[in-house]
Amino acid sequence: MRRFVLLAHKAPVAPDFTLNDLPGSAGRIDVLCRAIGAAFFLSHDLRRDVEVDILLQDQVQIRLVGEKLKRLNPDERSTAALIKHALEKLVGEEEEVQSTPGIFVSRRTLPEMVDRLYQLGAHPVVLHEEGAPFEAASIPDDPAFFLSDHQDFSPTDEEALADLPRVSLGSTPLHTSQCITIVHYLLDRQREDEGDLVMCHKVWEESKAHLIKGLLEDFGIPANLVRHVPPSVLPITVDGLSEVRIMVRPRDLQRAREIISDYFEPPIDE
Amino acid sequence: MRRFVLLAHKAPVAPDFTLNDLPGSAGRIDVLCRAIGAAFFLSHDLRRDVEVDILLQDQVQIRLVGEKLKRLNPDERSTAALIKHALEKLVGEEEEVQSTPGIFVSRRTLPEMVDRLYQLGAHPVVLHEEGAPFEAASIPDDPAFFLSDHQDFSPTDEEALADLPRVSLGSTPLHTSQCITIVHYLLDRQREDEGDLVMCHKVWEESKAHLIKGLLEDFGIPANLVRHVPPSVLPITVDGLSEVRIMVRPRDLQRAREIISDYFEPPIDE
Repeated sequence: MRRFVLLAHKAPVAPDFTLNDLPGSAGRIDVLCRAIGAAFFLSHDLRRDVEVDILLQDQVQIRLVGEKLKRLNPDERSTAALIKHALEKLVGEEEEVQSTPGIFVSRRTLPEMVDRLYQLGAHPVVLHEEGAPFEAASIPDDPAFFLSDHQDFSPTDEEALADLPRVSLGSTPLHTSQCITIVHYLLDRQREDEGDLVMCHKVWEESKAHLIKGLLEDFGIPANLVRHVPPSVLPITVDGLSEVRIMVRPRDLQRAREIISDYFEPPIDE
Repeated sequence: MRRFVLLAHKAPVAPDFTLNDLPGSAGRIDVLCRAIGAAFFLSHDLRRDVEVDILLQDQVQIRLVGEKLKRLNPDERSTAALIKHALEKLVGEEEEVQSTPGIFVSRRTLPEMVDRLYQLGAHPVVLHEEGAPFEAASIPDDPAFFLSDHQDFSPTDEEALADLPRVSLGSTPLHTSQCITIVHYLLDRQREDEGDLVMCHKVWEESKAHLIKGLLEDFGIPANLVRHVPPSVLPITVDGLSEVRIMVRPRDLQRAREIISDYFEPPIDE
């Protein structure tokens, strides 16, 4: 599961705001609404393996749980209405309550949120300009990414998050929702790349296999060579006659085959 | 300049919609508002080298020009108000008019938009699920990315765009605004990587330089070796004593130095 933890510094903890002025009197709730949308929405679908935990002014936690979530729409106003409704339901409550399907509201502080995540086996990671580059960092399973809203992390936030690993999305300063979109994109890509490599061509000369591998890598396509000795009636392997399979990521397959075709010969795919 | 061309199929061409129901009676104008935000906004800043061209129902073009744009805010409602105002200004006009600073509205069709882009020297590219992988494609200078709204390209769109190159952001189906965010991210990264490599360490043995290069590459950090023969009183180069500089991308510098330090020795940076 991917979790996003949003620390909101100005958004109200009481439901007395108007949906007609989200950036103003509603304390930039529009920032949170866009972040929620970025976390959950696919084109005409919802990411069910996502949880968004919002902390309002270090007092109120609103959790949106993808696998149970209903009534979430992509526009800001309807999402703000769900938050407003959650805050209405919290009035007079001590324990966590479910305000609408998949949305849970309670009174929590940041250290309590971090503790809860550890207890669930999640791995907190702070998205921070000064962190290690995301693409080179090894993101743990079950990550919980901490992000701030339109303001920087407060000194209290920084203190509570001081011991957590930090990763960065580069030097361009982005909106919270944009960071979430990019994190999803990079993790989706990593997951695709972890899948099995596929064969794009096979040759019978080791040297030619290396030529093709080098060519593909010049085009930015990583390739592996797999040697495969076919069953034979001969009790010995004739050197230089073993089959070499050139393996690439599924997303590179079509382009790799085009390149091989342009430079060498029509690719063999079995 | 980066251009994004949004083809909107349901959004109204007349200003008779309410800002309180953007996804409903306003024909999913919320989709366009989020896309505009993704195209222009940085954290507390605006991308000035961006233009967004919106085509409403193949009839009305609204252009948002980054370098002249004023009054744009990140929330959907205020952006929708700017679109509504543009449509009000268009009533009775034949030529393109500026409705608010940086927003221009006119009557155009898709083929006319494509022609205009070519005349400006822009390079149209279609973001399409069936395109070549973005990261491997060579994106031209002055790209103009064509995207659809929440609906697929219509048959008329497909016909008008048939001859344009197509690139894909992978197999996960995304919202228009998410695609724009990712395109910006990938182009920002490419631009950073095109900058000069920086030296992260230097050694005096070629073999050791290769060991370090291999180590860095194991961690996903591309490295180049640059041989540098220092001025010497000797008229000959003593083999194996030339200086080798290990060069990496600026964004990898800190991590490369940490890795070298962990595995070999404190890095030398001049």
